[in-house]
Amino acid sequence: MALEIVDINCDLGEAFGRWRVGDTEDSALMGLISSANIAAGFHAGDPNLMDNTVRVAVEHGVGIGAHPGYNDLQGFGRRKINGTARELVNDIVYQVGAIREFARRHGASLQHVKPHGALYMEMAVNPEFAQLFVQYMRTVAPNAYVFCMAGSATETAALEVGQPLVREFYADRDYDESGSIVFTRDVGRPDPMAIARKVVRACKDGLVTTVSGKDIEVPFESICFHSDTLGALDIVRNMREALIAEGIRIAPISEIVR
Amino acid sequence: MALEIVDINCDLGEAFGRWRVGDTEDSALMGLISSANIAAGFHAGDPNLMDNTVRVAVEHGVGIGAHPGYNDLQGFGRRKINGTARELVNDIVYQVGAIREFARRHGASLQHVKPHGALYMEMAVNPEFAQLFVQYMRTVAPNAYVFCMAGSATETAALEVGQPLVREFYADRDYDESGSIVFTRDVGRPDPMAIARKVVRACKDGLVTTVSGKDIEVPFESICFHSDTLGALDIVRNMREALIAEGIRIAPISEIVR
Amino acid sequence: MALEIVDINCDLGEAFGRWRVGDTEDSALMGLISSANIAAGFHAGDPNLMDNTVRVAVEHGVGIGAHPGYNDLQGFGRRKINGTARELVNDIVYQVGAIREFARRHGASLQHVKPHGALYMEMAVNPEFAQLFVQYMRTVAPNAYVFCMAGSATETAALEVGQPLVREFYADRDYDESGSIVFTRDVGRPDPMAIARKVVRACKDGLVTTVSGKDIEVPFESICFHSDTLGALDIVRNMREALIAEGIRIAPISEIVR
Amino acid sequence: MALEIVDINCDLGEAFGRWRVGDTEDSALMGLISSANIAAGFHAGDPNLMDNTVRVAVEHGVGIGAHPGYNDLQGFGRRKINGTARELVNDIVYQVGAIREFARRHGASLQHVKPHGALYMEMAVNPEFAQLFVQYMRTVAPNAYVFCMAGSATETAALEVGQPLVREFYADRDYDESGSIVFTRDVGRPDPMAIARKVVRACKDGLVTTVSGKDIEVPFESICFHSDTLGALDIVRNMREALIAEGIRIAPISEIVR
Repeated sequence: MALEIVDINCDLGEAFGRWRVGDTEDSALMGLISSANIAAGFHAGDPNLMDNTVRVAVEHGVGIGAHPGYNDLQGFGRRKINGTARELVNDIVYQVGAIREFARRHGASLQHVKPHGALYMEMAVNPEFAQLFVQYMRTVAPNAYVFCMAGSATETAALEVGQPLVREFYADRDYDESGSIVFTRDVGRPDPMAIARKVVRACKDGLVTTVSGKDIEVPFESICFHSDTLGALDIVRNMREALIAEGIRIAPISEIVR
Repeated sequence: MALEIVDINCDLGEAFGRWRVGDTEDSALMGLISSANIAAGFHAGDPNLMDNTVRVAVEHGVGIGAHPGYNDLQGFGRRKINGTARELVNDIVYQVGAIREFARRHGASLQHVKPHGALYMEMAVNPEFAQLFVQYMRTVAPNAYVFCMAGSATETAALEVGQPLVREFYADRDYDESGSIVFTRDVGRPDPMAIARKVVRACKDGLVTTVSGKDIEVPFESICFHSDTLGALDIVRNMREALIAEGIRIAPISEIVR
Repeated sequence: MALEIVDINCDLGEAFGRWRVGDTEDSALMGLISSANIAAGFHAGDPNLMDNTVRVAVEHGVGIGAHPGYNDLQGFGRRKINGTARELVNDIVYQVGAIREFARRHGASLQHVKPHGALYMEMAVNPEFAQLFVQYMRTVAPNAYVFCMAGSATETAALEVGQPLVREFYADRDYDESGSIVFTRDVGRPDPMAIARKVVRACKDGLVTTVSGKDIEVPFESICFHSDTLGALDIVRNMREALIAEGIRIAPISEIVR
Repeated sequence: MALEIVDINCDLGEAFGRWRVGDTEDSALMGLISSANIAAGFHAGDPNLMDNTVRVAVEHGVGIGAHPGYNDLQGFGRRKINGTARELVNDIVYQVGAIREFARRHGASLQHVKPHGALYMEMAVNPEFAQLFVQYMRTVAPNAYVFCMAGSATETAALEVGQPLVREFYADRDYDESGSIVFTRDVGRPDPMAIARKVVRACKDGLVTTVSGKDIEVPFESICFHSDTLGALDIVRNMREALIAEGIRIAPISEIVR
């Protein structure tokens, strides 16, 4: 079942104060994506940057997503912190509220929520956490999408209560046989051409090759890449070109998910 | 011009993690106030505490206010940080958004915003900061009240654009001849009876005696005291009793400000 | 093999800014202990408090220990953070250096290092982390004691390289059959009399009853209790009285460990 | 009175976690300077980075300096925080201790202390703060140099008690008529050739032209530039070449200050 239309999402606003990560300016990426996951201050991002990133996303018509992470600037949210489900959801509420306020300030609303890094991975395997998170979404943002991996506890929890969800394909991460991405704190500089081929195949055939060499099915509505991956601009350009060459249209989530 | 009706506001949720300050539990104060200024994580408060404080305030019918501060847990937001007006307003947007999300989660909306400590004092004397803040309020929370001192730049800015405002009388702080409170990082343990007399006089005669011994006029709609002041529970109990004995009614802001 | 002499150590300086935890003032405990584990800013403690705590400990002739924790004020260092061994040891080096500088300022030197909370528990089961930590101690503090649980990876690592070590008995924590304490984020208010009996038995018979009801051997040179445990003052008073009644002397580590 | 020999100092280790600032790698600068001011975690730097920066500095024979700042990662230590002298000195003690521990780990000792950014500027004009700082240095590091501006309160305080001191010339900052640098939070990308000319003139004639166009005398033993200034590598290369062409030798502080 080939995809004819797909969303592209990217983590943005992942600088802090005067510091930057990666080799790509957010502003260069804004015209090339349809959904932005905007860092909310715990793993990256500060209020000035959040304000600016939301403003630029709105100007480009890019969907605004909150990108809450573990409270660990030093570890960039890529180190698990052993909090309770209640603590982790409260951290998310706090950060989503902040992003939503900046969105409101710039005349936009919240399109989606996507936890970051190790917090995303934790929710994927922790049903208690996933259910408490989705319950919060039901209450305060019933129309906002939850971004998740197919087969994750997050997907299950969202399906159970009818919260809108979007499944992602990870362009710049490897997969294991369970259908999960192989989590890493640093990916180095991947090959943009290889990524483009991998993405096109996933869109056309719904398949990805795992680290063990096996092909698995991977259903999704959005393609994710990371602004802190080295060469992010080349990655998204190549990927877009390859998708368009195959007749696959890049469009906002609202056009894709009914 | 004697007051017949007045609001009582208090800073709440000013603990952090397992730590507490002052000698009074927030839960003991909730039944005695009409407006809560809830710490939003920068000078005090963490997401778990914010969630709980908002929930308890909603249960008591207490008006929910965001209480954003300087980003300085160690200094309890009572040390000025030399940020630009834009930086300080972005810090406020971030924190207000967080409180508003917890309010939404518990079925309430934002009644007011009151900056904390040194940030409140800075806004009172910094027109650029006050105007940028009020402009943000106009955009995203046109019906929420700005809490301020009479005569402050904050009041002026709110009046200029028509943002609803509430002026406060500080029960547990001293006044100087300019009508400003004398800012201090720690007030010790004031005398609850003296505070009650001071508050009643302010309500009935509109006057307060400054640190230099002079009487000045002080117009207000709400009385403020601090939960971290030692003896806070005695302070508010004595104050309420004295007000009621004088026939002054304590009521929510919405009944007081037209 | 009954103990005739024992050290008593306690976590101190675990406040932050204006906040306090527990119901006991550090100053009340200083005269009742022989070793202080002083919080170093990551899970508790700030530079002003560290300066003061070190000064008071020196005045009381209490041995100065660094008490480094995970970088998590909100979780009080009782939530594991998934850092690498190298990251965790660098966090410890940073904090030990800070405590040592305050000690030097007050004319004292570093007696020992004892990681806090979840970091202590992690080192107990992580040989790579324990070895890297002990290697650092060998290099910069060859005469400082490592405080640890008997049977832990920390003990093993210290023994391997000849770093001086002190094994602890946990007065206000429960034991499991492995000889490890049962880690908890909050112990409530334990019974001081029961603790005194448990401590005396451990000193006289070298035994403790686990949560499953079995008696196990527990060798140690120091007794630990926590200043944030409710009733800490009663706990240490009862414990001291009971020890002295049994003819067991409380003395500094330097008199105990050869 | 022309200089024949001069030290070059630079702020290093001013990254944080995965983030970087400026366009220059510290490793490229290490071979071109004689003294390193190493960020200590409050305005920049984390324990992993500190460990690495100290190690590399030791390998290059560069003098190790602690570079403590205000506790403000977001503001990069370039926003004044209104703490008391006691608070600010305790913050410095904490950070110096941390750097010294990493130095000890790598077999080096502390050559100097230089406060960062707004903290440096505050000490320059706050005699109480400067005196309390120098008193601490006298106690725990009587042979370590205090880096300061000629004419500052810091210099005065160090001279009064006989603490070794080094006066700096700021290559990439402008001067006002008082002999102070014009403090800024961001300098943009200055012209390396102009800086080289300015530095050579300062060394040969002891003069610098202020922002108002007047020439003032500026005595110094060390030249400072910042690793976060854009083009830092070109700046130091041009400067060194120009100094060497004029027969001025670059040497460690220990050879310069008697």
